Amino acid sequence: MITSASNKSIKNVQALLSKAKERKKQGVFVVEGPKMSFEAPYDWVSAVYMSESFFNDDRFKEEKKRFLDKTEIVSDSVFKSMSDTQTPQGVLAIVKMPHYEIDELFKGDKTELLVLESIQDPGNLGTMVRTGEGAGVSGIIMNRTTVDIFNPKTVRSTMGSLYRVPFYITDDLPETIEYAKSKGVSLYAAHLKGKCSYDRPDYTGACGFMIGNEGNGLSDEIADMADTYIRIPMEGAVESLNAAISATLLMYECNRQRRLLGE
Amino acid sequence: MITSASNKSIKNVQALLSKAKERKKQGVFVVEGPKMSFEAPYDWVSAVYMSESFFNDDRFKEEKKRFLDKTEIVSDSVFKSMSDTQTPQGVLAIVKMPHYEIDELFKGDKTELLVLESIQDPGNLGTMVRTGEGAGVSGIIMNRTTVDIFNPKTVRSTMGSLYRVPFYITDDLPETIEYAKSKGVSLYAAHLKGKCSYDRPDYTGACGFMIGNEGNGLSDEIADMADTYIRIPMEGAVESLNAAISATLLMYECNRQRRLLGE
Repeated sequence: MITSASNKSIKNVQALLSKAKERKKQGVFVVEGPKMSFEAPYDWVSAVYMSESFFNDDRFKEEKKRFLDKTEIVSDSVFKSMSDTQTPQGVLAIVKMPHYEIDELFKGDKTELLVLESIQDPGNLGTMVRTGEGAGVSGIIMNRTTVDIFNPKTVRSTMGSLYRVPFYITDDLPETIEYAKSKGVSLYAAHLKGKCSYDRPDYTGACGFMIGNEGNGLSDEIADMADTYIRIPMEGAVESLNAAISATLLMYECNRQRRLLGE
Repeated sequence: MITSASNKSIKNVQALLSKAKERKKQGVFVVEGPKMSFEAPYDWVSAVYMSESFFNDDRFKEEKKRFLDKTEIVSDSVFKSMSDTQTPQGVLAIVKMPHYEIDELFKGDKTELLVLESIQDPGNLGTMVRTGEGAGVSGIIMNRTTVDIFNPKTVRSTMGSLYRVPFYITDDLPETIEYAKSKGVSLYAAHLKGKCSYDRPDYTGACGFMIGNEGNGLSDEIADMADTYIRIPMEGAVESLNAAISATLLMYECNRQRRLLGE
């Protein structure tokens, strides 16, 4: 059992939680809590840390057995010091970063992409991954200046969808968008200049939704690459919606249309 | 100019930011940044605090003039100590809490209510207020165990919609729901047991959407009061969506139907 907060493994978990650079260097990230730890595909997990009292209590027997050979027990007080959350749940795991080729995001005419430019809020990004899985997106493309998808807050907000939604982080967003267009994907930009309400276009073919930064929206360069500007009608004095909220409405409008088509 | 962090007004702002009880006692709350401060209805504002450098710079000339008689200047370093945000924007205001009678939330057959039970995340609540205004809700009902709507994080996430959406905080949610039903409001509960997809019912008459706590959903007592359980279809292995995301989909489905009807 690890009982010292200066233990090398403990220090490493703390570094992985706080530093994107360290995560990138090691190719792993940290997930916290039983849901995220035990939902992780076994092969992706390189280590599991449990507090002594979590390990000894009666819950999650099956799951504890499954990960036993990768588990290290940590004293309760040391476990507290290694967690990113205010109320640590007694278990966390070190997970290998998944890597997808760009072509894994395309599913022919069932392709539905979410294309993110410079999203800054970790919770927003995580929520978009979670809602994206729910809505049935085939993949998420984001540029390098989008917040790190392996940020602990992002990971937490994905509620496990991070394990299942293919994503691609690009150094050259315009080039990646061109590639998507060459694959027959119609691109829609949520834009304040849009005249077409978001529930009007036909999203039953391959399509993608472009969502920009929380404060500034899409850059002109990226917005110019869209096939169609769309807008979300807003009542009252509302000037814009939160990025994750906008993405939700677009992705679920696509989901609604495809469901109707399938009936 | 206030130059001491131990000044009584400064101490009071800090107390208002950190303590719901203090806000309630004084009947005021704090808004931060130029957008929220200058969008506040003049009569609601009891005081405006500006950092020296914000007051002296060239931006927001009109707005500064309008609130001049309520403005106190604060040295930059003291201003930093009174702000709730990591990057203070140089202006904050003390605003009187609006108070609505329950009947102000009803608009005949255009009534659209959001009914919240024990929402815990301040950002979620604020986002629902903002999105609610955008979707055109006539009012938001929440129980006393919902997070304080005047919490600084909630206020910030509303992006000003807090000034415009009527809301009612009830000590007795079942009673308030009964009252809404007596006014002819059909109530829909987002519920995992729902068999009816959320885009199937007709929301063009008076309606309301019930959304439960992030972790536990609606209590049985409240869910039982719904006229109809609805569900949001989810692909993949997603078990539920974030509360603000679910609320968004329901409110905007209502918006979509009412728009189509108006055409």
